[in-house]
Amino acid sequence: MLCLAARAGRGNFHLTGVNALEILESRIKRDGKVLPGGILKVDSFLNHQMDINLFDGMAGELYRLFGDCEVNKILTIEASGIGLACITGRIFGCPVLFAKKSLTKNLRGEFYTAEIESFTHGDTATIYVSKEYLSSSDRVLIIDDFLATGSALMGLINIAEQAGAQVMGAGIAIEKAFQSGGKKIREKGYRIESLARIKKMGDDGSIEFC
Amino acid sequence: MLCLAARAGRGNFHLTGVNALEILESRIKRDGKVLPGGILKVDSFLNHQMDINLFDGMAGELYRLFGDCEVNKILTIEASGIGLACITGRIFGCPVLFAKKSLTKNLRGEFYTAEIESFTHGDTATIYVSKEYLSSSDRVLIIDDFLATGSALMGLINIAEQAGAQVMGAGIAIEKAFQSGGKKIREKGYRIESLARIKKMGDDGSIEFC
Repeated sequence: MLCLAARAGRGNFHLTGVNALEILESRIKRDGKVLPGGILKVDSFLNHQMDINLFDGMAGELYRLFGDCEVNKILTIEASGIGLACITGRIFGCPVLFAKKSLTKNLRGEFYTAEIESFTHGDTATIYVSKEYLSSSDRVLIIDDFLATGSALMGLINIAEQAGAQVMGAGIAIEKAFQSGGKKIREKGYRIESLARIKKMGDDGSIEFC
Repeated sequence: MLCLAARAGRGNFHLTGVNALEILESRIKRDGKVLPGGILKVDSFLNHQMDINLFDGMAGELYRLFGDCEVNKILTIEASGIGLACITGRIFGCPVLFAKKSLTKNLRGEFYTAEIESFTHGDTATIYVSKEYLSSSDRVLIIDDFLATGSALMGLINIAEQAGAQVMGAGIAIEKAFQSGGKKIREKGYRIESLARIKKMGDDGSIEFC
């Protein structure tokens, strides 16, 4: 914990990792809105407007959890994973790679691809990672904002493994533990650490944590 | 400069802002690839794989430039702007808001919108920012990875001004100064600080800075 406090608490930010978890849960309770269809709206601090101070504390907790895994690359997916992944990459001191959901003119060469279903977009998409930036020498930590059905996370694991990289685990901001993704992927033997795990969201807007 | 060095150089990162600019230019020269059609491929460190150590130095330089502007919100656009915006937001100690290119199920309410043309996607798109997160009390710094035609930047300025927010300026990683965007927007009176300004890209792959 000393290591964590020293890293996450430096500069003008003062959250330690554990503190950040309490703050994350209370932010979800206070600012999260439960919408029909099992949607949790947390765009005031997580995936539209981003509370970087909170992210810094969350990244500190991810460092406490995975700091001894010799992670040399962080992998995430555009767009909502990028913020937390970058703040986490800063503490790990390693580059961050994000899977793209479309091929743009400035991308060239060969790609690892996977098909994912998007819960919030309501469609399926191909995601792309350039073969230049993932290899068998990489020890990868996957970061994302949400884990629900697990489709995006499985897509990222799949891409890392196509490259022969080692998946050291996944760090997730919010897991909807009442959906099957986390259970299914943990049963395959992958380590997933979710900073907040939601057990139940009520029709009355209530949120219960695991 | 003392302030900058103390902030940007803390922890396990050691780039000061000015140092970072030299490193950014040399990275563009070393790793950037000039592709047909005026495309600069810098996805090894800027917009697919992201060098967070370099971002930290760039953010330090942006703090040196805009640190006295009482910025209270950073505005960017998904996906490639988010990484640098978050690392910059950390140094400014303020939240980061990113404009979305599509409306997902977890977004509700009213939005400011603007139409932009994407150079790398080769199409036009509507961008969205929730009215909840921008207001007339905001002093906004806009961050993006590239400035070329200026369409994305004008869209973000437009959205900030719809909200009545003050645009304190824009911080850009790479400006293609041979395209018209920067000149056009500066002539409207906006402050733009680009960390690297490219004067010319040759058919032989050469890159010349301003």
